[in-house]
Amino acid sequence: MTSENIFSTIDKDLLTLNHNLESMVGARHPVLHAASEHLFTAGGKRIRPAIVILIAKAMLGKENGKVFYSHERLAEITEIIHTASLVHDDIIDECTTRRGVPTVHNMFSTKIAVLAGDFLFAQSSWYLANLDNLAVVKTISKVITDFAEGEVRQGLISFDTRIMVNEYIEKSFYKTASLIAASCKGSAILSEVSAREQDKCYLYGKHLGLAFQIVDDILDIIGNPDELGKPSGSDLINGNLTAPILFALTESPELQNLIDNEFEGESDVGQAINLISKTQGINKAKDLAAEHIQAAINIFSSSKDIEYEDYYNLVKVSLYVLDRIN
Amino acid sequence: MTSENIFSTIDKDLLTLNHNLESMVGARHPVLHAASEHLFTAGGKRIRPAIVILIAKAMLGKENGKVFYSHERLAEITEIIHTASLVHDDIIDECTTRRGVPTVHNMFSTKIAVLAGDFLFAQSSWYLANLDNLAVVKTISKVITDFAEGEVRQGLISFDTRIMVNEYIEKSFYKTASLIAASCKGSAILSEVSAREQDKCYLYGKHLGLAFQIVDDILDIIGNPDELGKPSGSDLINGNLTAPILFALTESPELQNLIDNEFEGESDVGQAINLISKTQGINKAKDLAAEHIQAAINIFSSSKDIEYEDYYNLVKVSLYVLDRIN
Repeated sequence: MTSENIFSTIDKDLLTLNHNLESMVGARHPVLHAASEHLFTAGGKRIRPAIVILIAKAMLGKENGKVFYSHERLAEITEIIHTASLVHDDIIDECTTRRGVPTVHNMFSTKIAVLAGDFLFAQSSWYLANLDNLAVVKTISKVITDFAEGEVRQGLISFDTRIMVNEYIEKSFYKTASLIAASCKGSAILSEVSAREQDKCYLYGKHLGLAFQIVDDILDIIGNPDELGKPSGSDLINGNLTAPILFALTESPELQNLIDNEFEGESDVGQAINLISKTQGINKAKDLAAEHIQAAINIFSSSKDIEYEDYYNLVKVSLYVLDRIN
Repeated sequence: MTSENIFSTIDKDLLTLNHNLESMVGARHPVLHAASEHLFTAGGKRIRPAIVILIAKAMLGKENGKVFYSHERLAEITEIIHTASLVHDDIIDECTTRRGVPTVHNMFSTKIAVLAGDFLFAQSSWYLANLDNLAVVKTISKVITDFAEGEVRQGLISFDTRIMVNEYIEKSFYKTASLIAASCKGSAILSEVSAREQDKCYLYGKHLGLAFQIVDDILDIIGNPDELGKPSGSDLINGNLTAPILFALTESPELQNLIDNEFEGESDVGQAINLISKTQGINKAKDLAAEHIQAAINIFSSSKDIEYEDYYNLVKVSLYVLDRIN
């Protein structure tokens, strides 16, 4: 299942999104514009805005059919927040490539990257305020706090092999799932559905986001750097102990040794990946991702208020997340 | 006139503010907490929150007397946004000391500084959303966009001696006056006064903020590093051509030469300061600051709705800004 296939129902929405993203960051400042465009045009799966639109369609149901202007704007805001966080994350994690192109702080400078990230966060706050919906503003504001929380937690526990899978899940919530969950809820709020439906959308986004992060973490180990758009094993190098690594650690004392010594050479990372592949680490992480996808799908399975086609699309996008590793 | 003298009417409010600032950034993360506390306890003049409270008192008038909880919160949010911008500015400008103590990126690391700034911006967005006033959210959100705009402009025109004083004023608006103006307007909105009064407060804050920046820029040249809490001449080093420098340039071709060569040694900066002191640059910049202070004071001079004591306090705080260079 390809992403083109999944997103075919919302093709037009995503085209508009790509066009709007560029005009939203503005063309007044050549350097900032170049830095932002650099990331926006490098692609990215646009899975976050896609989910916002799919939730909007599902919540609005047959009568409305067409999503609102505010839904489209929320989808754009979500992608801008995500991109802003990537620009700052890349400084913090010292990544050199992202989405297959050099990172902003690598291609331009750390200064420009700090500025470009601030600029994108600022633009998103401003567009958010102008959605004129206080409940949505509150829901999304919380996410940016969660990002910082996630990054700090990641920093605090790097190379700490005593951490548990539940700490990893908590960190992944702050880092990834919080934005997807909040933007699903925001999309539901804009569709004016009940608080109960809003909470369901939040949970759907939360489970999808967690699965998404676990899959990303598996790909960091088994993925092809060309397809990933970044070098593999970067989590290992940064001491970011993800699900497959934590599961592998329970079976491999050699891996434990390597990580305790914080990887002295590049060959150590290759060796660590090799050790992980000999354990059940990857499989157990796949199971964990599948559990969260199942939990996401289950949320709407008994919902009578949702059209079959809309439900089917939400299932499809969920399975696509998992498909990236199969 | 000392700052203790000026702020005596709002002593208690500022004490509460200092206490709240610490608890608002949270004690969960030792490193982030240390980074933020480092800046909050290093002092700072707290002039921004003081203005928010003084405007609140002026707008509420005699009947109410006491400012609202939301005014206090806005004062705190304003100081948090300001501190966040300082942390990121110090990375961008490569400053090593601030408020008399090492900057966050110098004492901790660039990574922690990016994170601490993001965290503070995020906290401010969240507290802002929870003021439950969409007009205030919109007014303040605009400021964060303006910050980034100001920083980019500063970067684009560094060492460019062709820039005009009006470009400098525009940049200073984005960098400094926008936050003070918007928080004055926010304070007026929370006091539920008319749109006309809100606009007056905005203008008052704008002129005060511009004067404040001009005074800061004069102090960067004539100030004592111990009192400034940072080395003097740092604007020159960064190619940040401020009002006194721009005025001096019209009289001194030697200064032009030095700046065109982007300061090859530290002695060049000393020489530049020396050259500036031989021109009318400082005096002309003082006049420009005084003009903006006068404009700020004039805004409320004909206002019948404002108590004399409140007006007097707004005048006092304005004159205090100017007094720092006299």
